[in-house]
Amino acid sequence: MTNSAYDKLCERFREINKLQHAITYLSWDQMVMMPPQGAAMRSESVAELAGISHARLTAPEVAAWLSEVDGDEEHQVSIREMKRVWRNASCLPAELVKKQIVVGSACEMGWRTQRGANDWQGFLENFKPVVELSRREAQYRQQASGAATPYEAMLALHCHGDSEQMIDAVFAKLRETLPGLLQQVLDKQGDIAVSEQADYPIENQINLNKEMLDTLGFDFQAGRLDQSMHPFSTGSAGDSRITTRYDQSSFLEALAGTAHEVGHASYESQLPTGLRGLPIGESRNMCIHESQSLLFEKQIFFSKSFMEFFAKGVHRHLPAASHLTDDDLWQLGTRVKAQKIRVEADEVTYPLHVMLRYEIESALINSDIEPEAIPELWNEKMQSYLGVETTGDYTNGCMQDIHWTDGAFGYFPSYTIGAINAAQLFATIKSEHPDWQQRFKTGDIKFVRDWLLENIWSKGCSLESQELMQSATGSQTRAESLIEHLEARYLRAEY
Amino acid sequence: MTNSAYDKLCERFREINKLQHAITYLSWDQMVMMPPQGAAMRSESVAELAGISHARLTAPEVAAWLSEVDGDEEHQVSIREMKRVWRNASCLPAELVKKQIVVGSACEMGWRTQRGANDWQGFLENFKPVVELSRREAQYRQQASGAATPYEAMLALHCHGDSEQMIDAVFAKLRETLPGLLQQVLDKQGDIAVSEQADYPIENQINLNKEMLDTLGFDFQAGRLDQSMHPFSTGSAGDSRITTRYDQSSFLEALAGTAHEVGHASYESQLPTGLRGLPIGESRNMCIHESQSLLFEKQIFFSKSFMEFFAKGVHRHLPAASHLTDDDLWQLGTRVKAQKIRVEADEVTYPLHVMLRYEIESALINSDIEPEAIPELWNEKMQSYLGVETTGDYTNGCMQDIHWTDGAFGYFPSYTIGAINAAQLFATIKSEHPDWQQRFKTGDIKFVRDWLLENIWSKGCSLESQELMQSATGSQTRAESLIEHLEARYLRAEY
Repeated sequence: MTNSAYDKLCERFREINKLQHAITYLSWDQMVMMPPQGAAMRSESVAELAGISHARLTAPEVAAWLSEVDGDEEHQVSIREMKRVWRNASCLPAELVKKQIVVGSACEMGWRTQRGANDWQGFLENFKPVVELSRREAQYRQQASGAATPYEAMLALHCHGDSEQMIDAVFAKLRETLPGLLQQVLDKQGDIAVSEQADYPIENQINLNKEMLDTLGFDFQAGRLDQSMHPFSTGSAGDSRITTRYDQSSFLEALAGTAHEVGHASYESQLPTGLRGLPIGESRNMCIHESQSLLFEKQIFFSKSFMEFFAKGVHRHLPAASHLTDDDLWQLGTRVKAQKIRVEADEVTYPLHVMLRYEIESALINSDIEPEAIPELWNEKMQSYLGVETTGDYTNGCMQDIHWTDGAFGYFPSYTIGAINAAQLFATIKSEHPDWQQRFKTGDIKFVRDWLLENIWSKGCSLESQELMQSATGSQTRAESLIEHLEARYLRAEY
Repeated sequence: MTNSAYDKLCERFREINKLQHAITYLSWDQMVMMPPQGAAMRSESVAELAGISHARLTAPEVAAWLSEVDGDEEHQVSIREMKRVWRNASCLPAELVKKQIVVGSACEMGWRTQRGANDWQGFLENFKPVVELSRREAQYRQQASGAATPYEAMLALHCHGDSEQMIDAVFAKLRETLPGLLQQVLDKQGDIAVSEQADYPIENQINLNKEMLDTLGFDFQAGRLDQSMHPFSTGSAGDSRITTRYDQSSFLEALAGTAHEVGHASYESQLPTGLRGLPIGESRNMCIHESQSLLFEKQIFFSKSFMEFFAKGVHRHLPAASHLTDDDLWQLGTRVKAQKIRVEADEVTYPLHVMLRYEIESALINSDIEPEAIPELWNEKMQSYLGVETTGDYTNGCMQDIHWTDGAFGYFPSYTIGAINAAQLFATIKSEHPDWQQRFKTGDIKFVRDWLLENIWSKGCSLESQELMQSATGSQTRAESLIEHLEARYLRAEY
């Protein structure tokens, strides 16, 4: 153990962070600003930067420094996180990574037309080698990390700290409860008399979304709101980039999307400044990240009390929405419907869409099933969880998502673990702030931001994800947190 | 001589080009999109990329490869250009470059307030070390390049191929003719009855500028138009980024600026594709670059015949401009006025502003004068060239430009050599296309682009700048080309 090896590691990670900064904003530009013909040169430039960044991280001296710092107790946690990042980057043979890029992009490119053509057989041919290589990747990652299963090793890329065993247990609980709860909600839910459809000029919607960002604590001196095909959030402290997509005939989806992205952006921009550039200073994992976005979207924006406040802004910016009361907006925003498409799913059905994918992808990566088995499993599960028939409809069935096409296995669970974490964190916030609804009615959400800053954002990666949930809420991720939230909102219309 | 050393050089320069691509678009983002608080991280990231790029260019193996390829006749010109780029990057001690950054940014930062405060003495204190270090830089560069004088070595950074001797001769000719010509123009020029001032909504101006870009051959599949404080053009083939600045009470300046930037952007985007990433595939020098922008702005946009066509677009987009005929627009765009500020100068007086700066900066870098002497020289020359009194007014006198504050000596002449080249190139185009005015009246400028593509853009750096002028126009840069243009337009109102 020498201080100087640790210092060298810090310096190296900060250098890599500067390269990642460049990649981040070049990628944002690519998705938001770049004209079509810029694509070829841009990918070459980004690939060059990624190559330099990877070479700096996996250089022999880094491995040497990492063994030198073994036993450095002062920086134990920081070193743990450095090792995690280093291991993820260095455990795969370069040959495998290259093959995956080729095979993955062929599969994704094919999928773009095969999906619309409902061509499962064509897709399957490209998809089989993707699975084959992902299984090899999972084995390498399992060896390096000591994960319990190959799938858990993939999971750790996105949900590090949330084990397959833990997710299995949480999902088992949801499986018991949610299908029945969904039926109750559908039975209870009446028709809505009003319609959202009208003419809402985009310019007005942009101003409305900016007003919401302002209400939710987004700082325009340290961020931007733009438009893109697929809404996303990227950037870092001092420079958050949020995008949304507008539809001239409706406005709620864009607003919800913007609220969602504020959660992601707030987390990234409020990470501990002193640890910037080091792995310990980064956001924890996607289950925590998604909990931040869902907290802003589902717990704040779609609460009755916030909607009571925000309806005034809607009416001010969108004269065509003057027929919609705050209760109408809440009704519209909390409609539940069993249907085929995950990205169109509501709070109640979304976890069922995710569980189905989790069960299939874990079996696939753990070699318990082969890709050929996917459609039948998909149809069975859609029927049993959601009562929805997808047989023969690959387009809106097992071919609907992009994730698997390039081997991004292990990402899906973060959507639902994130939703549970959001409900659990917000339950704690509510219990500490019994006047939360009074505050939301005046547009005051600062106490939520303060709480998240103290309990989540400022922690970076200093705690493992379940330690973080424990310290913030008094318990690890509990499926009940989500169920209680859904029952309160969707059966008892409490908030 | 081995092929493989040349191949390695090509590979290295292409790698560097990918890093430069990243710097280019990150810098564009910084000036056009980035929120204020992103500045600190952005400069760190760009500095890191610049450092990597510099290290790759000046690495010992590059020097070794460059001596290995000595005598390779097949790639002689490509190697000449590689050596030029390499020499420019590697001939300065790192220590000096670091000092220059510190001293230069202190001087520039100080200037931002001192200029407004008319504080020459305060500025002088920061400026003296800048000059001192620039003289040392010039000596190193002279040693490495064998330039005739220290100033010529600085000149070569921007105007490579156009010698101090040549520029002296060209400027001597202008000095004989221009002050007298200016007097004739001022005497002849009557008052204009109409005023441009009215209310022109920015949104309409943006559409008008986009229409002009379209007319001038700008491809929106391979470029963007945005707004920034200071209009500029950057980017590369497939992705040109032009900016302009709008004023709600006038529109001609923004249009002229956009036309100007199209010239720069067209050059950069039409360089030879096969040589992309290599020094031989780059734009020639700033005297040629500026000739392209001035050709689009002064020769095309402000010609009577193009204005006759484009006035229709102005009237369509800007109802408040309906009182301005095409002749009014031409009159407004070709007003001549002797005044203090270079960036506000017209075609006739601009060269005088530049010559004054050239004379002072060359004497300064060649150690013929000291910084203290600047104000008096400035005032004398302003009086003798333009008949304008600047004594005591440093703000609008010798402190008006940013260029010298961080040591950018040798840049100014490119504005005027560029204007001469533009007039000379366009004279050749006109002689080859006697129906040019008929074509301009219908908005057809494609023949100009075709000619420039064949004679300038496609050449990259394969010819030295004066070889390029010779091959394109049949002679080297001649001061008479500009004088003839100015006499035709401003004394005889021919076009």
